[in-house]
Amino acid sequence: MRIGKVVGNVWATRKDEKLNGQKFLVIKLFLDKENYQEGLFVASDNAGAGIGDTVLVTNGSAARASVENTQIPVDSTIVGIVDSFEVEDE
Amino acid sequence: MRIGKVVGNVWATRKDEKLNGQKFLVIKLFLDKENYQEGLFVASDNAGAGIGDTVLVTNGSAARASVENTQIPVDSTIVGIVDSFEVEDE
Amino acid sequence: MRIGKVVGNVWATRKDEKLNGQKFLVIKLFLDKENYQEGLFVASDNAGAGIGDTVLVTNGSAARASVENTQIPVDSTIVGIVDSFEVEDE
Amino acid sequence: MRIGKVVGNVWATRKDEKLNGQKFLVIKLFLDKENYQEGLFVASDNAGAGIGDTVLVTNGSAARASVENTQIPVDSTIVGIVDSFEVEDE
Amino acid sequence: MRIGKVVGNVWATRKDEKLNGQKFLVIKLFLDKENYQEGLFVASDNAGAGIGDTVLVTNGSAARASVENTQIPVDSTIVGIVDSFEVEDE
Repeated sequence: MRIGKVVGNVWATRKDEKLNGQKFLVIKLFLDKENYQEGLFVASDNAGAGIGDTVLVTNGSAARASVENTQIPVDSTIVGIVDSFEVEDE
Repeated sequence: MRIGKVVGNVWATRKDEKLNGQKFLVIKLFLDKENYQEGLFVASDNAGAGIGDTVLVTNGSAARASVENTQIPVDSTIVGIVDSFEVEDE
Repeated sequence: MRIGKVVGNVWATRKDEKLNGQKFLVIKLFLDKENYQEGLFVASDNAGAGIGDTVLVTNGSAARASVENTQIPVDSTIVGIVDSFEVEDE
Repeated sequence: MRIGKVVGNVWATRKDEKLNGQKFLVIKLFLDKENYQEGLFVASDNAGAGIGDTVLVTNGSAARASVENTQIPVDSTIVGIVDSFEVEDE
Repeated sequence: MRIGKVVGNVWATRKDEKLNGQKFLVIKLFLDKENYQEGLFVASDNAGAGIGDTVLVTNGSAARASVENTQIPVDSTIVGIVDSFEVEDE
């Protein structure tokens, strides 16, 4: 899994109808506690997330395990709202 | 999922016949709202996309979930036409 | 698989309930014997790992094979505590 | 999928016998119309490709969908010979 | 698949017992004929490989297809010993 920040929304009226009912959020992934990795990622939301939340994101076929329907064509799902995380210095 | 822009077509007469009937489009992925990630990606189209469209792309085994036939050997599918997306500044 | 170091914890009270009972740890991956790859990764723990341990991490659908329940939406699992590893010079 | 160029052969006499009968080719992936991405990739061939051909490559579990036997341990398969592809300037 | 060089061993006494009987080797992947990609990768061995061997490595769910038991949580398997490989100049 990766830790990310929800930074936006994405709207798509015309889409694969198997995606109806999914909420999609734009995510940036943390590279370390201070910086984000380059790239915009889109995840379906299975944890009630909103903009500004720090979230736990699962990718690949696990994303479909979260939405509990392997017919839904998502490859990334928010599976938790992160209360806090710590990284030891070395 | 990733947000991309459809930038071209690809033609392949000689191919795995399980791909017959699929339309393939060349995609660049957004790194942020202004810039593209390096690399050309090819996705099958399940949303009626055309050149210049901003699209939502799903990758991996989810791509086959979208085309609703797990025998079709695609690893990337356009699942939506993006009307708009927003990214909060930080 | 990748070799990583456990560098932290992550807490998420609100989450996909299928993740209940999983322990999540923050991992950095080794680039070589001295340096870490950029990026924070989160893995479920199936080997009794703790902070400071060098661990073997499996990713993708194999992560669910380790937790022995393909309904659990994890994409990365710690499958072993590394006693030591060697890399030949070239 | 990715667009690549077949740049070589690889010979492996001693191998997982489930790979017998597969032809393996070395591929470089296009970064844009002029340049290749770093890295050598090996794909099984399901399109009758040869050195110098521009090809369409599918990766991940889709590679096994192409060879129509999910027991064959390939993670990348050439699924088409690319006649031509175009990329719009922006 | 990727072409790599076996550069070391990894020992893990405490591990997911489904990994018992697997031999794990540390691999560096070739970027081109002369240079390695950054990063240490660990693969299970299904080809009788040893240190110094050039090997063909399959990743993802194909790794479990090679070990013929989808319950074994490996995401990378050595599927062949490479006798030689050639890369055309361009």
